[in-house]
Amino acid sequence: MSQTNAYAAFAADKPLAPFSVERRQPRPDDVAIEILYCGVCHSDLHFARNDWGMTRYPLVPGHEIVGRVTAVGDEVSQHQVGDIVGVGCMVDSCRHCQPCEDGNEQYCLNGFTMTYGSDDRHDGSLTQGGYADQIVVSEHFVLRMPEGIDLASAAPILCAGITTYSPLKHYGVKPGHKVGVIGMGGLGHMGVKLAKALGAEVTVFTRSEAKVEEARRHGAHHVVVSTDEEQMAAVAETYDFMLDTVPVQHDLNPYLAALKYDGTHILVGLLDPIEPAVQGANLVFKRRVLAGSLIGGIEETQELLDFCAEHDIRCDIETVNIQDINTAFERMEKGDVRYRFVIDMASLKE
Amino acid sequence: MSQTNAYAAFAADKPLAPFSVERRQPRPDDVAIEILYCGVCHSDLHFARNDWGMTRYPLVPGHEIVGRVTAVGDEVSQHQVGDIVGVGCMVDSCRHCQPCEDGNEQYCLNGFTMTYGSDDRHDGSLTQGGYADQIVVSEHFVLRMPEGIDLASAAPILCAGITTYSPLKHYGVKPGHKVGVIGMGGLGHMGVKLAKALGAEVTVFTRSEAKVEEARRHGAHHVVVSTDEEQMAAVAETYDFMLDTVPVQHDLNPYLAALKYDGTHILVGLLDPIEPAVQGANLVFKRRVLAGSLIGGIEETQELLDFCAEHDIRCDIETVNIQDINTAFERMEKGDVRYRFVIDMASLKE
Ligand SMILES: [Zn+2]
Ligand SMILES: [Zn+2]
Ligand SMILES: [Zn+2]
Ligand SMILES: [Zn+2]
Repeated sequence: MSQTNAYAAFAADKPLAPFSVERRQPRPDDVAIEILYCGVCHSDLHFARNDWGMTRYPLVPGHEIVGRVTAVGDEVSQHQVGDIVGVGCMVDSCRHCQPCEDGNEQYCLNGFTMTYGSDDRHDGSLTQGGYADQIVVSEHFVLRMPEGIDLASAAPILCAGITTYSPLKHYGVKPGHKVGVIGMGGLGHMGVKLAKALGAEVTVFTRSEAKVEEARRHGAHHVVVSTDEEQMAAVAETYDFMLDTVPVQHDLNPYLAALKYDGTHILVGLLDPIEPAVQGANLVFKRRVLAGSLIGGIEETQELLDFCAEHDIRCDIETVNIQDINTAFERMEKGDVRYRFVIDMASLKE
Repeated sequence: MSQTNAYAAFAADKPLAPFSVERRQPRPDDVAIEILYCGVCHSDLHFARNDWGMTRYPLVPGHEIVGRVTAVGDEVSQHQVGDIVGVGCMVDSCRHCQPCEDGNEQYCLNGFTMTYGSDDRHDGSLTQGGYADQIVVSEHFVLRMPEGIDLASAAPILCAGITTYSPLKHYGVKPGHKVGVIGMGGLGHMGVKLAKALGAEVTVFTRSEAKVEEARRHGAHHVVVSTDEEQMAAVAETYDFMLDTVPVQHDLNPYLAALKYDGTHILVGLLDPIEPAVQGANLVFKRRVLAGSLIGGIEETQELLDFCAEHDIRCDIETVNIQDINTAFERMEKGDVRYRFVIDMASLKE
């Protein structure tokens, strides 16, 4: 065991504050990592505030982790001391169920081990995330950061990136496809870049005129202001896929109407009841599909990191010091971030 | 033009009554058919009562038509006088859009021509259905009834059959798959037989204990009483596909929970708003899919007729005389039919 400096939430209504967290001695398959950067995901905020009613305190958030290997267990074969690596939303899974065998650990039938807030499968200890100096993770869940990738802006690829990439790949988005991206936050702006890099013709749907220029800057070929009924009517039956990154309730029907026959609407952010109600006719009459998707598998995440390095795809970030995490949380709540905060973990040493 | 005897609806609140309907002289690509049998679909009832607000009276319902060819136009190559043929829900489409080129005329971008209640694409006349002695239909929309198939019980294959077969084929149901069928009416009991013939392990979901035996008689391997929470809990994450034939609002969430990861819930009957609301989490956390499907294409319908002949799959029917159609409608409204009424059109000659 060793103690490592961290920031933790201590209660739903308290600010994050310094905390000393225990990290286990590396097991034979473990990699010990000195954390360089950690992205700040909306889930971090929800967990810290106990919005999902499952938080155990103190909680160290953070699951967009980039760092340097400082030690490896005897059986580790994929990583060496000094390697630059990443850790995303998962640090373990059962490894033998069908989804695990398929490389879809995120759908593990026995529940994947979350990077923070889960019970470790071996010693039952509470996992603690990346707002910390160090972390120890089984090598299967440690990603290789490709040569030359910008480390700070790559951190959010491990959650925001893979969440949008996984369904685009699963549904086979390719040149010739028309893809709509709904919402232009951390997920949405990555969705635009990734769908474009996969060869699709990309249209951003945004409620605000003000975001039109921004969407084009991220590479969107077209922008539709979704509150403008005329613009929406003009794109009826146009898209093969809709990547819906909006995490709050919204009416899916106008977007379904914009899908071609056989088109697919993919939810990656909405966990709540789907209200207003989807019209059955909007699915039946055009054989449309409404689908969900959750982050992505480990192998697929590695593929995405390599893809981002090759295509120079970066998340747009704002770097912050760990001491400013509470201000960052407040700004996220107001939607005041373009598009992801990333903590420079060097600040934790100060 | 020729006049043919028929039964028509004259108003939403009036019983069907005898009517003389005009049939066009066969065009070069037309087939004239003497109708032997016509199935009675729930759509017929909805149209007769103007439930969908689009009915023009007088209306001759009927889109599960089996008959004998009495004349063919000069350019007809697929059918000959004397052939036994079928006509389903469509009698025309634009024939050049992408769905039409794909053989999915039911999703024609320009709207398929319904067997009754549509404007004919050439002369603008109102199409009139199969509760009649004769019908004239373009050969592309005329099916060949396979040798030896039982004609009366085959009529509903043209709507109830293809509605369930098309999605099973589209989604690739095959041996090894577990398929749930929700609802045991005209569509549901055909779904059971077809999914089983495709090699799947079939489970019927029914709200009523009383239907358990019946479901097994249709070949269901298993039956789950959906109102029994224990039985539902026991089948969590079990099925690859759910074929949902229920036409009225119902809670999809318990059925979604019974799907495996990557499982697909297929709506073929529900056109209304999907309420209670689907939980986004039920799709996202397991990459599940909610899909719709509408009847099927012409080529696919021919494939199904041949498949049914080969596997001796029949719709369970009750034959009625045309004079009893109003009683049949009333019984259908009460769910008192196992599982389809088929009109013996010889009765119209009496
Ligand atoms: Zn995240
Ligand atoms: Zn597993
Ligand atoms: Zn029908
Ligand atoms: Zn067409």
